[in-house]
Amino acid sequence: MPKLILIRHGQSQWNLENRFTGWWDVDVTEKGAKEAWDAGILMKEKGLAPDIGFTSVQTRAVKTMNLALEAMGRLWMPVTKNWQLNERHYGGLTGLDKAETAAKHGEEQVHIWRRSFDIPPPPMDGDSPFAMENDPRYAGINIPNTESLKDTIIRVLPYWENVIVPEIKSGKQVMISAHGNSLRALVKHLSNISDDDITGLEIPTGQPIIYELNDDAQGGEYYYLKD
Amino acid sequence: MPKLILIRHGQSQWNLENRFTGWWDVDVTEKGAKEAWDAGILMKEKGLAPDIGFTSVQTRAVKTMNLALEAMGRLWMPVTKNWQLNERHYGGLTGLDKAETAAKHGEEQVHIWRRSFDIPPPPMDGDSPFAMENDPRYAGINIPNTESLKDTIIRVLPYWENVIVPEIKSGKQVMISAHGNSLRALVKHLSNISDDDITGLEIPTGQPIIYELNDDAQGGEYYYLKD
Repeated sequence: MPKLILIRHGQSQWNLENRFTGWWDVDVTEKGAKEAWDAGILMKEKGLAPDIGFTSVQTRAVKTMNLALEAMGRLWMPVTKNWQLNERHYGGLTGLDKAETAAKHGEEQVHIWRRSFDIPPPPMDGDSPFAMENDPRYAGINIPNTESLKDTIIRVLPYWENVIVPEIKSGKQVMISAHGNSLRALVKHLSNISDDDITGLEIPTGQPIIYELNDDAQGGEYYYLKD
Repeated sequence: MPKLILIRHGQSQWNLENRFTGWWDVDVTEKGAKEAWDAGILMKEKGLAPDIGFTSVQTRAVKTMNLALEAMGRLWMPVTKNWQLNERHYGGLTGLDKAETAAKHGEEQVHIWRRSFDIPPPPMDGDSPFAMENDPRYAGINIPNTESLKDTIIRVLPYWENVIVPEIKSGKQVMISAHGNSLRALVKHLSNISDDDITGLEIPTGQPIIYELNDDAQGGEYYYLKD
């Protein structure tokens, strides 16, 4: 049975500072880089040998992929980067930490945005310091100004179906380095998790998640790779 | 005019030890990693902004690409890895240092292999510790057991013409991270250097080479990017 490996990027600076990050391109911390390296060592020890990788176009996910591959001795492996695997766009919350968000919008409203399936945060202002309109990586892409988890799923799943599934069906072991919410999209789909339950699923940073797929690239149970 | 960026990987452990490396997958040294990073910073300062990258499947070239892109803030850029950009395969000389090679084959013979255009070193033995038949990165590839510079050119140029040139013609700035001899192949082609002269061209590690190409992806003069 083909194995699928999912990994959330190692700890980022804004994970550490408890800020809404979304599409802002925050790097991994030293701890995050070590998480990625250790994940590669663990995968190698457990006999995993991916054939092809996919990541978002965000530095923290690309670096997590590259560090894990280097630790596995597989830096030669083809890796495709695509914005459809990006983190959920947090709109006007981008850059705010927990206390700032609560002060600005109230605890209850923040809880709704965090935990609802289809209610997006307020849109990002056009003059926000976190606007990405001039970032060359998004040239030609209709950048969202906010996203619910549902919106995120709507752009992750077509990429999964059209680009990743054909690789799995051709017999390849696929590794995906992505983000809390783009991985929720995949786990929801593969493990058939309800809209209500998926918003509460916390995916830890730097821990490889393994699916044993059937030949139609469908999953079921998954497990975390552990020592 | 489209710019083309060529970079030879940063110093490797076997560059340092003066060993014939060829296809053996030797990592960069700490100095080599810094060369790659500094090259990225320099390219950024000089306003270079590649759209797409190509490297060999050898760790030292992939890491040089990744470190330079990270320093430029362009880790999101698509990068394609292909064995046709690999270093020249040094056959039975692989792993030998200067003194060992001279002791085994004589100074004069070594000079001939190093400096001739079309005389390959003796083939690698099938039971060599440096044989690559079981390396998964070369699955399905007819691995050479030795190469002259001419042999190297014969597999580099079709990749250049069929894969890289179309990207340049579509208006993209291309960056290639490769090796002393795979870069000689490109420089010979682009600058129309004779068979005799190309074997003496030394390309330093970690120094970006810039071509200003015409619209047919043909070159002429090149220059090293310097502070």
